[in-house]
Amino acid sequence: MSELVCGTSRIVGCRFSVFPMTDRFVEVIMGALHSVDTTKVWVQTDDVSTCVRGRMEHVFDVTRAIFAHAAASGVHTVFQGTYSIGCPGDTDADVYMDEDPTLLNCDIGKHADIETACQFALYPLGTDNYMEVIYNEVHRAKAAGTFNGSVHYASRLDGALSQVFESLENAFQHAIQSDHSHLVMTAVVSAHSPSAKSK
Amino acid sequence: MSELVCGTSRIVGCRFSVFPMTDRFVEVIMGALHSVDTTKVWVQTDDVSTCVRGRMEHVFDVTRAIFAHAAASGVHTVFQGTYSIGCPGDTDADVYMDEDPTLLNCDIGKHADIETACQFALYPLGTDNYMEVIYNEVHRAKAAGTFNGSVHYASRLDGALSQVFESLENAFQHAIQSDHSHLVMTAVVSAHSPSAKSK
Repeated sequence: MSELVCGTSRIVGCRFSVFPMTDRFVEVIMGALHSVDTTKVWVQTDDVSTCVRGRMEHVFDVTRAIFAHAAASGVHTVFQGTYSIGCPGDTDADVYMDEDPTLLNCDIGKHADIETACQFALYPLGTDNYMEVIYNEVHRAKAAGTFNGSVHYASRLDGALSQVFESLENAFQHAIQSDHSHLVMTAVVSAHSPSAKSK
Repeated sequence: MSELVCGTSRIVGCRFSVFPMTDRFVEVIMGALHSVDTTKVWVQTDDVSTCVRGRMEHVFDVTRAIFAHAAASGVHTVFQGTYSIGCPGDTDADVYMDEDPTLLNCDIGKHADIETACQFALYPLGTDNYMEVIYNEVHRAKAAGTFNGSVHYASRLDGALSQVFESLENAFQHAIQSDHSHLVMTAVVSAHSPSAKSK
């Protein structure tokens, strides 16, 4: 993958929120944000969401770790994020692209085993063959064993938190390599849902 | 707008979740789902999200009302939804397209006045001029007075719940009328955020 396509940066971003369904939500969210090493990404939090931007591997490393720390609270917690690459004009903070690829938060230990359910969708923009890109990534998740069926407007992944985020990162990485300059992926990942237990 | 474009149905869908940040989240979510009249839409809830599908006006009516009821709990509550139209093959439940346009949940009364902050994004698929479509809808929200700046990967809306959902519905409706067969819009709408109060 070349460093520059269509005059835009190859910086990856994720705008996400973590929702711990508890009266202690502020403590869980702030604890998760502070437990994670974000020195290799640009990060900004507002009253609605947090945005991290940088090299693809660090964006996935940081978002996965923040959710893992929040979900380790044991309460029903949901991660909702939109990953994006190639958004026209998205060059701000390109300095983070110079970071080395060594992950800072890969040791999330036992948090990685938390069972999760995910619904995700890929949106390759500015191209006619976007459905083909989507089908390819569904097949990849099937091969990885995380795919658990299609629902309206999304594909479902089930598995340990680390497996689900690996499938998400693989889908995003391969879809952008196909031929696209602008790719968006949305993901909702749920942990400790009482609905899941009662099924 | 014609009833059929590109051989796909004009059925609109929204896959969404409501996140009340409280220990009583089950009660708030179930209460909201049961307070709303969903007889004019196809509806299915699983352990991750709820999907409603039908005529555009009913999909927006039902999602707005469910969030309004949940937010009326007074706790920090977030709505996260993906609206879609023209997804290839999305014709299941087309029978709901025969419903009349009279809204069943427009009287959400004082709930409509709850102050909200929203981040939304439009993704017109299969077209080259998608950025133009997005800019047009940003201008429409500016004219409506709800637009409150651009952030990475999203546009921000602030205002009463009813105003924010009106801007979302207007953006979606006009963007699909532009010329597109497949349109996706994501929205995160937050109510009663302690971060907002502390700003």
